Amino acid sequence: MLDKQKQKAEAFLRLHQGPGTLVLPNAWDVASTRIFEHASFQAIGTTSYAIAASLGYLDGECVPFAEMMEVIERIAKNTDLPVNADIEAGYGKEIDKVVETVERVIKAGVAGINLEDATGNPDQPFFDTGFQCEKLKAVREAAASVGIPLVINARTDTYQIRFSDPEAQFQETVKRSNSYRQAGADCIFIPGWLDGEMIARLVAAIDAPINIFASPVTPTVPELNKLGVSRLSIGPGAFRTALACTKKIAAELAEHGTYETLFSDTLTKADVDSLFKPRELLNK
Amino acid sequence: MLDKQKQKAEAFLRLHQGPGTLVLPNAWDVASTRIFEHASFQAIGTTSYAIAASLGYLDGECVPFAEMMEVIERIAKNTDLPVNADIEAGYGKEIDKVVETVERVIKAGVAGINLEDATGNPDQPFFDTGFQCEKLKAVREAAASVGIPLVINARTDTYQIRFSDPEAQFQETVKRSNSYRQAGADCIFIPGWLDGEMIARLVAAIDAPINIFASPVTPTVPELNKLGVSRLSIGPGAFRTALACTKKIAAELAEHGTYETLFSDTLTKADVDSLFKPRELLNK
Repeated sequence: MLDKQKQKAEAFLRLHQGPGTLVLPNAWDVASTRIFEHASFQAIGTTSYAIAASLGYLDGECVPFAEMMEVIERIAKNTDLPVNADIEAGYGKEIDKVVETVERVIKAGVAGINLEDATGNPDQPFFDTGFQCEKLKAVREAAASVGIPLVINARTDTYQIRFSDPEAQFQETVKRSNSYRQAGADCIFIPGWLDGEMIARLVAAIDAPINIFASPVTPTVPELNKLGVSRLSIGPGAFRTALACTKKIAAELAEHGTYETLFSDTLTKADVDSLFKPRELLNK
Repeated sequence: MLDKQKQKAEAFLRLHQGPGTLVLPNAWDVASTRIFEHASFQAIGTTSYAIAASLGYLDGECVPFAEMMEVIERIAKNTDLPVNADIEAGYGKEIDKVVETVERVIKAGVAGINLEDATGNPDQPFFDTGFQCEKLKAVREAAASVGIPLVINARTDTYQIRFSDPEAQFQETVKRSNSYRQAGADCIFIPGWLDGEMIARLVAAIDAPINIFASPVTPTVPELNKLGVSRLSIGPGAFRTALACTKKIAAELAEHGTYETLFSDTLTKADVDSLFKPRELLNK
Protein backbone atom coordinates (compact mmCIF):
# COMPACT_ATOMS: atom_id res chain seq x y z
CA MET A 1 0.00 0.00 0.00
CA LEU A 2 2.72 2.50 1.01
CA ASP A 3 4.89 1.15 -1.82
CA LYS A 4 2.16 1.90 -4.31
CA GLN A 5 1.69 5.36 -2.84
CA LYS A 6 5.44 5.97 -3.03
CA GLN A 7 5.44 4.99 -6.70
CA LYS A 8 2.50 7.28 -7.36
CA ALA A 9 4.30 10.20 -5.68
CA GLU A 10 7.44 9.53 -7.72
CA ALA A 11 5.44 9.29 -10.94
CA PHE A 12 3.59 12.48 -10.03
CA LEU A 13 6.88 14.34 -9.51
CA ARG A 14 8.20 13.12 -12.88
CA LEU A 15 5.10 14.56 -14.56
CA HIS A 16 6.37 18.00 -13.50
CA GLN A 17 9.56 17.48 -15.49
CA GLY A 18 7.97 17.54 -18.92
CA PRO A 19 7.96 17.11 -21.79
CA GLY A 20 4.54 18.84 -21.73
CA THR A 21 2.80 20.99 -19.15
CA LEU A 22 1.07 18.70 -16.64
CA VAL A 23 -2.65 19.52 -16.66
CA LEU A 24 -4.34 18.83 -13.35
CA PRO A 25 -8.15 18.85 -13.37
CA ASN A 26 -9.65 19.37 -9.92
CA ALA A 27 -12.32 16.99 -8.65
CA TRP A 28 -14.81 17.31 -5.81
CA ASP A 29 -16.30 13.80 -5.67
CA VAL A 30 -15.72 10.35 -7.13
CA ALA A 31 -17.90 10.94 -10.19
CA SER A 32 -15.89 13.99 -11.28
CA THR A 33 -12.67 12.09 -10.48
CA ARG A 34 -13.70 9.26 -12.76
CA ILE A 35 -14.74 11.65 -15.53
CA PHE A 36 -11.24 13.15 -15.44
CA GLU A 37 -9.55 9.76 -15.25
CA HIS A 38 -11.53 8.54 -18.27
CA ALA A 39 -10.56 11.73 -20.16
CA SER A 40 -6.93 10.55 -19.96
CA PHE A 41 -5.50 13.06 -17.52
CA GLN A 42 -2.43 11.73 -15.72
CA ALA A 43 -3.13 13.10 -12.25
CA ILE A 44 -6.06 14.56 -10.31
CA GLY A 45 -6.19 17.46 -7.88
CA THR A 46 -8.85 18.02 -5.27
CA THR A 47 -10.39 21.48 -4.87
CA SER A 48 -11.14 22.60 -1.33
CA TYR A 49 -13.54 25.27 -2.58
CA ALA A 50 -15.71 22.83 -4.51
CA ILE A 51 -15.60 20.12 -1.84
CA ALA A 52 -16.65 22.73 0.73
CA ALA A 53 -19.56 23.88 -1.45
CA SER A 54 -20.63 20.32 -2.11
CA LEU A 55 -20.72 19.71 1.66
CA GLY A 56 -22.49 23.02 2.37
CA TYR A 57 -19.64 25.24 3.55
CA LEU A 58 -17.84 28.34 2.37
CA ASP A 59 -14.17 27.90 1.47
CA GLY A 60 -11.34 28.98 3.76
CA GLU A 61 -11.12 26.01 6.13
CA CYS A 62 -14.79 26.37 7.14
CA VAL A 63 -15.24 22.64 6.49
CA PRO A 64 -14.48 20.55 9.54
CA PHE A 65 -11.15 18.85 8.80
CA ALA A 66 -12.59 15.34 9.21
CA GLU A 67 -15.26 15.99 6.56
CA MET A 68 -12.73 17.38 4.09
CA MET A 69 -10.42 14.45 4.74
CA GLU A 70 -13.22 11.93 4.15
CA VAL A 71 -13.76 13.31 0.64
CA ILE A 72 -10.04 13.48 -0.16
CA GLU A 73 -9.63 9.89 1.00
CA ARG A 74 -12.61 8.71 -1.03
CA ILE A 75 -11.20 10.38 -4.16
CA ALA A 76 -7.73 8.91 -3.59
CA LYS A 77 -9.14 5.40 -3.01
CA ASN A 78 -11.26 5.50 -6.15
CA THR A 79 -8.68 6.40 -8.76
CA ASP A 80 -5.49 4.79 -10.02
CA LEU A 81 -4.00 8.23 -10.70
CA PRO A 82 -1.79 10.23 -8.34
CA VAL A 83 -3.96 12.64 -6.32
CA ASN A 84 -2.89 16.08 -5.17
CA ALA A 85 -4.79 17.20 -2.06
CA ASP A 86 -5.76 20.83 -1.64
CA ILE A 87 -5.37 21.24 2.12
CA GLU A 88 -5.54 25.06 2.00
CA ALA A 89 -3.13 26.48 4.62
CA GLY A 90 -2.88 23.11 6.40
CA TYR A 91 -5.78 23.50 8.86
CA GLY A 92 -3.68 25.07 11.58
CA LYS A 93 -1.64 28.15 12.42
CA GLU A 94 1.17 26.30 14.20
CA ILE A 95 3.69 24.15 12.37
CA ASP A 96 2.88 21.10 14.54
CA LYS A 97 -0.77 21.31 13.61
CA VAL A 98 0.03 21.56 9.88
CA VAL A 99 2.36 18.57 10.17
CA GLU A 100 -0.48 16.60 11.80
CA THR A 101 -2.72 17.54 8.87
CA VAL A 102 -0.10 16.38 6.39
CA GLU A 103 0.40 13.09 8.24
CA ARG A 104 -3.34 12.52 8.07
CA VAL A 105 -3.59 13.36 4.37
CA ILE A 106 -0.68 11.04 3.56
CA LYS A 107 -2.66 8.26 5.26
CA ALA A 108 -5.51 9.10 2.87
CA GLY A 109 -3.25 7.91 0.05
CA VAL A 110 -2.36 11.14 -1.74
CA ALA A 111 0.76 11.77 -3.87
CA GLY A 112 1.01 15.50 -3.30
CA ILE A 113 -0.38 18.53 -1.49
CA ASN A 114 -0.93 22.24 -1.99
CA LEU A 115 0.05 24.41 0.95
CA GLU A 116 -0.98 28.08 0.93
CA ASP A 117 0.75 31.02 2.58
CA ALA A 118 -2.45 33.02 3.10
CA THR A 119 -3.54 33.51 6.73
CA GLY A 120 -7.16 34.44 6.05
CA ASN A 121 -6.59 37.61 8.10
CA PRO A 122 -6.99 40.75 5.91
CA ASP A 123 -4.74 42.83 8.22
CA GLN A 124 -1.83 40.44 7.83
CA PRO A 125 -2.70 38.39 4.76
CA PHE A 126 0.46 36.24 4.54
CA PHE A 127 2.44 34.09 6.89
CA ASP A 128 5.97 35.40 7.34
CA THR A 129 8.18 33.98 4.60
CA GLY A 130 10.67 32.49 7.06
CA PHE A 131 7.89 30.87 9.08
CA GLN A 132 6.32 29.44 5.90
CA CYS A 133 9.72 28.00 4.94
CA GLU A 134 10.06 26.33 8.35
CA LYS A 135 6.59 24.86 7.81
CA LEU A 136 7.56 23.49 4.40
CA LYS A 137 10.71 21.93 5.85
CA ALA A 138 8.72 20.31 8.65
CA VAL A 139 6.20 18.96 6.13
CA ARG A 140 9.00 17.52 4.00
CA GLU A 141 10.50 15.82 7.05
CA ALA A 142 7.15 14.38 8.12
CA ALA A 143 6.58 12.92 4.66
CA ALA A 144 10.13 11.56 4.47
CA SER A 145 9.77 9.93 7.88
CA VAL A 146 6.96 7.72 6.54
CA GLY A 147 8.82 7.10 3.28
CA ILE A 148 6.58 9.11 0.95
CA PRO A 149 8.28 11.51 -1.49
CA LEU A 150 5.23 13.77 -1.24
CA VAL A 151 5.06 16.33 -4.04
CA ILE A 152 4.84 19.65 -2.18
CA ASN A 153 3.20 22.39 -4.21
CA ALA A 154 3.86 25.59 -2.25
CA ARG A 155 1.20 28.12 -3.07
CA THR A 156 1.75 31.82 -2.73
CA ASP A 157 -1.38 33.91 -2.68
CA THR A 158 0.36 37.17 -3.56
CA TYR A 159 -1.72 37.48 -6.75
CA GLN A 160 -4.92 36.71 -4.87
CA ILE A 161 -5.05 40.14 -3.19
CA ARG A 162 -4.44 43.68 -4.42
CA PHE A 163 -1.07 45.36 -3.98
CA SER A 164 -0.83 49.13 -4.45
CA ASP A 165 2.50 48.65 -6.25
CA PRO A 166 2.51 45.96 -9.00
CA GLU A 167 6.30 45.78 -8.99
CA ALA A 168 6.32 45.12 -5.23
CA GLN A 169 3.73 42.39 -5.83
CA PHE A 170 5.94 40.78 -8.45
CA GLN A 171 9.05 41.00 -6.28
CA GLU A 172 7.23 39.60 -3.24
CA THR A 173 5.99 36.70 -5.37
CA VAL A 174 9.46 35.95 -6.69
CA LYS A 175 11.06 36.23 -3.24
CA ARG A 176 8.50 33.90 -1.68
CA SER A 177 8.63 31.43 -4.57
CA ASN A 178 12.40 31.09 -4.53
CA SER A 179 12.42 30.81 -0.73
CA TYR A 180 9.76 28.08 -0.74
CA ARG A 181 11.70 26.18 -3.38
CA GLN A 182 14.87 26.38 -1.29
CA ALA A 183 12.88 25.14 1.70
CA GLY A 184 12.03 21.98 -0.21
CA ALA A 185 8.92 22.68 -2.29
CA ASP A 186 8.77 20.70 -5.54
CA CYS A 187 6.62 23.18 -7.37
CA ILE A 188 5.40 26.75 -6.83
CA PHE A 189 1.71 27.50 -7.32
CA ILE A 190 0.78 31.09 -8.15
CA PRO A 191 -2.99 31.38 -8.55
CA GLY A 192 -4.33 34.57 -10.10
CA TRP A 193 -5.44 36.01 -13.41
CA LEU A 194 -1.97 36.03 -14.99
CA ASP A 195 -1.51 36.72 -18.69
CA GLY A 196 1.24 35.31 -20.88
CA GLU A 197 3.56 38.28 -20.36
CA MET A 198 3.37 38.06 -16.56
CA ILE A 199 3.80 34.29 -16.65
CA ALA A 200 6.93 34.68 -18.79
CA ARG A 201 8.38 37.16 -16.25
CA LEU A 202 7.60 34.82 -13.35
CA VAL A 203 9.10 31.77 -15.09
CA ALA A 204 12.26 33.76 -15.81
CA ALA A 205 12.63 35.03 -12.24
CA ILE A 206 11.68 31.89 -10.30
CA ASP A 207 14.06 28.96 -10.12
CA ALA A 208 11.40 26.24 -9.71
CA PRO A 209 8.69 24.38 -11.62
CA ILE A 210 5.66 26.68 -11.74
CA ASN A 211 1.96 25.84 -11.39
CA ILE A 212 -0.47 28.26 -13.07
CA PHE A 213 -4.21 28.45 -12.43
CA ALA A 214 -6.62 28.41 -15.40
CA SER A 215 -8.47 31.73 -15.68
CA PRO A 216 -10.18 33.43 -18.60
CA VAL A 217 -6.91 35.26 -19.40
CA THR A 218 -4.66 32.20 -19.19
CA PRO A 219 -2.82 31.16 -22.36
CA THR A 220 -3.75 27.74 -23.80
CA VAL A 221 -1.87 24.68 -22.62
CA PRO A 222 0.35 24.54 -25.74
CA GLU A 223 1.24 28.21 -25.10
CA LEU A 224 1.92 27.55 -21.40
CA ASN A 225 4.18 24.73 -22.44
CA LYS A 226 6.21 27.11 -24.64
CA LEU A 227 6.37 29.55 -21.74
CA GLY A 228 7.96 26.85 -19.59
CA VAL A 229 5.02 26.32 -17.20
CA SER A 230 5.28 22.92 -15.51
CA ARG A 231 1.72 22.51 -14.31
CA LEU A 232 -1.76 23.91 -14.81
CA SER A 233 -4.67 23.54 -12.34
CA ILE A 234 -8.27 24.31 -13.17
CA GLY A 235 -9.33 24.78 -9.55
CA PRO A 236 -13.06 24.87 -8.84
CA GLY A 237 -13.86 25.94 -12.43
CA ALA A 238 -15.37 22.64 -13.57
CA PHE A 239 -17.47 22.42 -10.40
CA ARG A 240 -18.81 25.93 -10.88
CA THR A 241 -19.64 25.32 -14.53
CA ALA A 242 -21.39 22.03 -13.73
CA LEU A 243 -23.33 23.87 -11.02
CA ALA A 244 -24.25 26.58 -13.54
CA CYS A 245 -25.68 23.78 -15.68
CA THR A 246 -27.74 22.52 -12.72
CA LYS A 247 -28.96 26.09 -12.17
CA LYS A 248 -30.11 26.37 -15.79
CA ILE A 249 -32.02 23.09 -15.50
CA ALA A 250 -33.63 24.33 -12.28
CA ALA A 251 -34.57 27.72 -13.72
CA GLU A 252 -36.21 26.23 -16.81
CA LEU A 253 -38.09 23.64 -14.79
CA ALA A 254 -39.23 26.13 -12.13
CA GLU A 255 -40.25 28.86 -14.58
CA HIS A 256 -41.63 26.93 -17.55
CA GLY A 257 -42.15 23.36 -16.33
CA THR A 258 -40.12 22.03 -19.26
CA TYR A 259 -37.07 19.78 -19.62
CA GLU A 260 -35.06 21.01 -22.58
CA THR A 261 -31.89 21.75 -20.57
CA LEU A 262 -32.42 18.60 -18.51
CA PHE A 263 -32.31 16.32 -21.53
CA SER A 264 -30.54 18.26 -24.28
CA ASP A 265 -26.96 17.18 -23.61
CA THR A 266 -26.74 14.49 -20.99
CA LEU A 267 -25.10 11.16 -20.19
CA THR A 268 -27.04 7.91 -20.26
CA LYS A 269 -27.27 5.66 -17.22
CA ALA A 270 -24.89 3.29 -19.03
CA ASP A 271 -22.39 6.15 -19.56
CA VAL A 272 -22.37 6.95 -15.86
CA ASP A 273 -22.36 3.30 -14.77
CA SER A 274 -19.32 2.69 -16.98
CA LEU A 275 -17.36 5.13 -14.81
CA PHE A 276 -17.59 2.79 -11.84
CA LYS A 277 -16.51 -0.66 -11.00
CA PRO A 278 -18.73 -2.80 -8.78
CA ARG A 279 -18.36 -2.13 -5.09
CA GLU A 280 -16.25 -5.21 -4.40
CA LEU A 281 -13.57 -3.88 -6.73
CA LEU A 282 -13.58 -0.45 -5.14
CA ASN A 283 -11.48 0.53 -2.12
CA LYS A 284 -8.96 -2.08 -3.15
CA MET B 1 -36.61 19.78 16.30
CA LEU B 2 -39.21 17.02 15.92
CA ASP B 3 -41.95 19.70 15.90
CA LYS B 4 -40.28 21.42 13.00
CA GLN B 5 -39.89 18.11 11.19
CA LYS B 6 -43.56 17.32 11.82
CA GLN B 7 -44.56 20.66 10.32
CA LYS B 8 -42.35 20.05 7.32
CA ALA B 9 -43.94 16.64 6.74
CA GLU B 10 -47.42 18.13 7.01
CA ALA B 11 -46.52 20.95 4.63
CA PHE B 12 -44.98 18.42 2.25
CA LEU B 13 -48.17 16.33 2.24
CA ARG B 14 -50.29 19.44 1.52
CA LEU B 15 -48.13 20.16 -1.53
CA HIS B 16 -49.51 16.92 -3.01
CA GLN B 17 -53.03 18.27 -2.79
CA GLY B 18 -52.63 20.96 -5.41
CA PRO B 19 -53.46 23.36 -6.83
CA GLY B 20 -50.50 22.66 -9.14
CA THR B 21 -48.37 19.59 -9.74
CA LEU B 22 -45.62 19.51 -7.09
CA VAL B 23 -42.25 19.51 -8.89
CA LEU B 24 -39.52 17.78 -6.93
CA PRO B 25 -35.96 18.31 -8.16
CA ASN B 26 -33.54 15.65 -6.95
CA ALA B 27 -30.29 16.67 -5.27
CA TRP B 28 -27.09 14.72 -4.59
CA ASP B 29 -25.14 17.16 -2.41
CA VAL B 30 -25.65 20.43 -0.55
CA ALA B 31 -24.65 22.61 -3.51
CA SER B 32 -27.32 21.10 -5.77
CA THR B 33 -29.82 21.29 -2.89
CA ARG B 34 -29.15 25.01 -2.49
CA ILE B 35 -29.40 25.61 -6.24
CA PHE B 36 -32.88 24.05 -6.19
CA GLU B 37 -33.90 25.91 -3.04
CA HIS B 38 -32.80 29.22 -4.60
CA ALA B 39 -34.79 28.37 -7.75
CA SER B 40 -37.96 28.48 -5.62
CA PHE B 41 -38.89 24.83 -5.56
CA GLN B 42 -41.01 23.94 -2.54
CA ALA B 43 -39.47 20.58 -1.67
CA ILE B 44 -36.33 18.61 -2.51
CA GLY B 45 -35.85 14.92 -3.21
CA THR B 46 -32.62 13.01 -2.91
CA THR B 47 -31.55 10.65 -5.69
CA SER B 48 -29.91 7.40 -4.63
CA TYR B 49 -28.44 6.90 -8.09
CA ALA B 50 -26.65 10.25 -8.14
CA ILE B 51 -25.51 10.05 -4.52
CA ALA B 52 -24.11 6.59 -5.22
CA ALA B 53 -22.23 7.85 -8.29
CA SER B 54 -20.90 10.85 -6.41
CA LEU B 55 -19.54 8.48 -3.73
CA GLY B 56 -18.14 6.04 -6.27
CA TYR B 57 -20.77 3.30 -6.32
CA LEU B 58 -23.29 1.85 -8.72
CA ASP B 59 -26.95 2.28 -7.79
CA GLY B 60 -29.05 -0.52 -6.31
CA GLU B 61 -28.09 -0.33 -2.63
CA CYS B 62 -24.38 -0.81 -3.46
CA VAL B 63 -23.60 2.21 -1.27
CA PRO B 64 -23.07 1.25 2.35
CA PHE B 65 -26.16 2.44 4.21
CA ALA B 66 -24.18 4.68 6.58
CA GLU B 67 -22.59 6.56 3.67
CA MET B 68 -25.94 7.10 1.97
CA MET B 69 -27.48 8.24 5.23
CA GLU B 70 -24.68 10.73 5.84
CA VAL B 71 -25.47 12.47 2.55
CA ILE B 72 -29.24 12.42 3.12
CA GLU B 73 -28.73 13.89 6.59
CA ARG B 74 -26.40 16.59 5.30
CA ILE B 75 -28.94 17.57 2.64
CA ALA B 76 -31.81 17.64 5.16
CA LYS B 77 -29.80 19.75 7.61
CA ASN B 78 -28.82 22.27 5.00
CA THR B 79 -32.20 23.23 3.59
CA ASP B 80 -35.34 24.78 5.02
CA LEU B 81 -37.45 22.80 2.55
CA PRO B 82 -39.07 19.41 3.20
CA VAL B 83 -36.77 16.65 1.97
CA ASN B 84 -37.90 13.37 0.46
CA ALA B 85 -35.31 10.62 0.90
CA ASP B 86 -34.79 8.05 -1.81
CA ILE B 87 -34.04 4.94 0.26
CA GLU B 88 -34.49 2.54 -2.66
CA ALA B 89 -36.13 -0.68 -1.36
CA GLY B 90 -35.30 0.19 2.26
CA TYR B 91 -31.88 -1.47 2.51
CA GLY B 92 -33.21 -4.79 3.68
CA LYS B 93 -35.33 -7.74 2.57
CA GLU B 94 -37.14 -8.20 5.88
CA ILE B 95 -39.76 -5.80 7.17
CA ASP B 96 -37.88 -5.26 10.44
CA LYS B 97 -34.76 -4.18 8.57
CA VAL B 98 -36.71 -1.74 6.40
CA VAL B 99 -38.37 -0.30 9.51
CA GLU B 100 -34.91 0.22 11.03
CA THR B 101 -33.86 2.06 7.87
CA VAL B 102 -36.92 4.28 8.06
CA GLU B 103 -36.33 5.03 11.75
CA ARG B 104 -32.79 6.07 10.90
CA VAL B 105 -33.84 8.25 7.97
CA ILE B 106 -36.49 9.98 10.10
CA LYS B 107 -33.68 10.86 12.54
CA ALA B 108 -31.89 12.46 9.59
CA GLY B 109 -34.72 14.99 9.48
CA VAL B 110 -36.60 14.05 6.33
CA ALA B 111 -40.28 14.74 5.57
CA GLY B 112 -40.90 11.82 3.25
CA ILE B 113 -39.46 8.69 1.67
CA ASN B 114 -39.66 6.68 -1.53
CA LEU B 115 -39.97 2.94 -1.05
CA GLU B 116 -39.55 0.68 -4.08
CA ASP B 117 -41.08 -2.74 -4.71
CA ALA B 118 -38.22 -4.00 -6.87
CA THR B 119 -36.14 -6.84 -5.41
CA GLY B 120 -33.07 -6.43 -7.63
CA ASN B 121 -33.47 -10.12 -8.56
CA PRO B 122 -34.23 -10.54 -12.30
CA ASP B 123 -35.93 -13.93 -11.72
CA GLN B 124 -38.42 -12.47 -9.29
CA PRO B 125 -38.26 -8.74 -9.90
CA PHE B 126 -40.97 -7.60 -7.45
CA PHE B 127 -41.79 -8.18 -3.83
CA ASP B 128 -45.14 -9.88 -3.40
CA THR B 129 -47.87 -7.23 -3.31
CA GLY B 130 -49.20 -8.40 0.06
CA PHE B 131 -45.72 -8.41 1.58
CA GLN B 132 -45.04 -4.93 0.22
CA CYS B 133 -48.32 -3.74 1.77
CA GLU B 134 -47.32 -5.20 5.15
CA LYS B 135 -44.02 -3.34 4.81
CA LEU B 136 -45.79 -0.06 4.07
CA LYS B 137 -48.06 -0.54 7.10
CA ALA B 138 -45.07 -1.23 9.33
CA VAL B 139 -43.31 1.87 8.01
CA ARG B 140 -46.39 3.99 8.66
CA GLU B 141 -46.59 2.67 12.23
CA ALA B 142 -42.90 3.29 12.85
CA ALA B 143 -43.23 6.90 11.68
CA ALA B 144 -46.42 7.44 13.69
CA SER B 145 -44.78 6.05 16.81
CA VAL B 146 -42.24 8.90 16.74
CA GLY B 147 -44.90 11.45 15.84
CA ILE B 148 -43.84 12.16 12.26
CA PRO B 149 -46.54 12.12 9.57
CA LEU B 150 -43.95 10.86 7.10
CA VAL B 151 -45.04 11.24 3.47
CA ILE B 152 -44.74 7.73 2.09
CA ASN B 153 -44.24 7.63 -1.66
CA ALA B 154 -44.72 3.99 -2.62
CA ARG B 155 -42.86 3.28 -5.81
CA THR B 156 -43.80 0.50 -8.16
CA ASP B 157 -41.16 -0.48 -10.67
CA THR B 158 -43.56 -2.24 -13.03
CA TYR B 159 -42.65 0.22 -15.82
CA GLN B 160 -38.93 -0.22 -15.16
CA ILE B 161 -38.82 -3.69 -16.70
CA ARG B 162 -40.29 -5.24 -19.86
CA PHE B 163 -43.57 -7.14 -19.76
CA SER B 164 -44.51 -9.31 -22.74
CA ASP B 165 -48.12 -8.15 -22.42
CA PRO B 166 -48.59 -4.35 -22.10
CA GLU B 167 -52.11 -4.77 -20.75
CA ALA B 168 -50.86 -7.10 -18.00
CA GLN B 169 -48.22 -4.49 -17.18
CA PHE B 170 -50.87 -1.81 -16.87
CA GLN B 171 -53.14 -4.00 -14.74
CA GLU B 172 -50.28 -5.05 -12.45
CA THR B 173 -49.34 -1.39 -12.00
CA VAL B 174 -52.91 -0.41 -11.12
CA LYS B 175 -53.35 -3.35 -8.75
CA ARG B 176 -50.13 -2.60 -6.92
CA SER B 177 -50.80 1.14 -6.80
CA ASN B 178 -54.27 0.80 -5.32
CA SER B 179 -53.05 -1.81 -2.83
CA TYR B 180 -50.16 0.38 -1.69
CA ARG B 181 -52.53 3.31 -1.26
CA GLN B 182 -54.87 1.18 0.87
CA ALA B 183 -51.87 0.09 2.94
CA GLY B 184 -51.20 3.69 3.85
CA ALA B 185 -49.05 5.21 1.09
CA ASP B 186 -49.65 8.93 0.54
CA CYS B 187 -48.56 8.94 -3.06
CA ILE B 188 -47.77 6.35 -5.73
CA PHE B 189 -44.58 6.75 -7.75
CA ILE B 190 -44.52 5.11 -11.19
CA PRO B 191 -41.14 5.74 -12.84
CA GLY B 192 -40.83 4.97 -16.54
CA TRP B 193 -41.05 6.61 -19.94
CA LEU B 194 -44.80 7.27 -19.79
CA ASP B 195 -46.48 9.46 -22.38
CA GLY B 196 -49.55 11.62 -21.80
CA GLU B 197 -52.01 8.95 -22.92
CA MET B 198 -50.61 6.33 -20.55
CA ILE B 199 -50.48 8.83 -17.69
CA ALA B 200 -54.15 9.69 -18.27
CA ARG B 201 -55.07 5.98 -18.11
CA LEU B 202 -53.09 5.51 -14.90
CA VAL B 203 -54.59 8.59 -13.22
CA ALA B 204 -58.09 7.35 -14.12
CA ALA B 205 -57.50 3.84 -12.77
CA ILE B 206 -55.53 4.61 -9.60
CA ASP B 207 -57.27 6.08 -6.59
CA ALA B 208 -54.25 7.96 -5.19
CA PRO B 209 -52.01 10.97 -5.83
CA ILE B 210 -49.55 9.98 -8.55
CA ASN B 211 -45.85 10.80 -8.90
CA ILE B 212 -44.45 10.78 -12.45
CA PHE B 213 -40.78 10.71 -13.41
CA ALA B 214 -39.44 13.26 -15.91
CA SER B 215 -38.28 11.53 -19.11
CA PRO B 216 -37.84 12.79 -22.64
CA VAL B 217 -41.44 11.71 -23.45
CA THR B 218 -43.02 13.26 -20.34
CA PRO B 219 -45.60 16.02 -20.93
CA THR B 220 -44.67 19.48 -19.57
CA VAL B 221 -45.61 20.38 -16.00
CA PRO B 222 -48.65 22.45 -17.08
CA GLU B 223 -49.83 19.43 -19.10
CA LEU B 224 -49.21 17.05 -16.21
CA ASN B 225 -51.24 19.37 -14.03
CA LYS B 226 -54.18 19.13 -16.46
CA LEU B 227 -53.79 15.34 -16.46
CA GLY B 228 -54.20 15.31 -12.68
CA VAL B 229 -50.63 14.33 -11.78
CA SER B 230 -49.81 15.29 -8.18
CA ARG B 231 -46.05 15.18 -8.29
CA LEU B 232 -43.14 15.13 -10.72
CA SER B 233 -39.60 13.96 -9.88
CA ILE B 234 -36.59 14.57 -12.08
CA GLY B 235 -34.53 11.75 -10.59
CA PRO B 236 -30.81 11.69 -11.43
CA GLY B 237 -31.33 13.74 -14.61
CA ALA B 238 -29.79 16.97 -13.34
CA PHE B 239 -26.79 15.09 -11.94
CA ARG B 240 -26.20 13.31 -15.24
CA THR B 241 -26.47 16.51 -17.24
CA ALA B 242 -24.11 18.36 -14.89
CA LEU B 243 -21.70 15.43 -15.22
CA ALA B 244 -22.01 15.63 -19.02
CA CYS B 245 -20.95 19.25 -18.69
CA THR B 246 -17.90 18.20 -16.63
CA LYS B 247 -17.09 15.62 -19.30
CA LYS B 248 -17.19 18.26 -22.05
CA ILE B 249 -14.84 20.51 -20.06
CA ALA B 250 -12.50 17.55 -19.54
CA ALA B 251 -12.55 16.50 -23.20
CA GLU B 252 -11.78 20.01 -24.47
CA LEU B 253 -9.00 20.50 -21.93
CA ALA B 254 -7.45 17.07 -22.53
CA GLU B 255 -7.64 17.21 -26.32
CA HIS B 256 -7.01 20.87 -27.12
CA GLY B 257 -5.64 22.42 -23.92
CA THR B 258 -8.28 25.16 -24.08
CA TYR B 259 -10.94 26.46 -21.68
CA GLU B 260 -13.93 27.53 -23.74
CA THR B 261 -16.37 25.09 -22.09
CA LEU B 262 -14.78 25.75 -18.70
CA PHE B 263 -15.50 29.47 -18.80
CA SER B 264 -18.30 29.93 -21.33
CA ASP B 265 -21.28 29.63 -19.00
CA THR B 266 -20.28 29.46 -15.38
CA LEU B 267 -21.09 30.83 -11.93
CA THR B 268 -18.82 33.33 -10.21
CA LYS B 269 -17.33 32.62 -6.80
CA ALA B 270 -19.78 35.16 -5.40
CA ASP B 271 -22.71 33.31 -7.03
CA VAL B 272 -21.67 30.06 -5.40
CA ASP B 273 -20.81 31.67 -2.06
CA SER B 274 -24.27 33.26 -1.98
CA LEU B 275 -25.78 29.77 -1.85
CA PHE B 276 -24.27 29.17 1.58
CA LYS B 277 -24.55 30.67 4.96
CA PRO B 278 -21.48 30.75 7.19
CA ARG B 279 -20.78 27.53 9.01
CA GLU B 280 -22.09 28.78 12.38
CA LEU B 281 -25.52 29.26 10.81
CA LEU B 282 -25.55 25.82 9.28
CA ASN B 283 -26.70 22.67 11.06
CA LYS B 284 -28.99 24.80 13.14
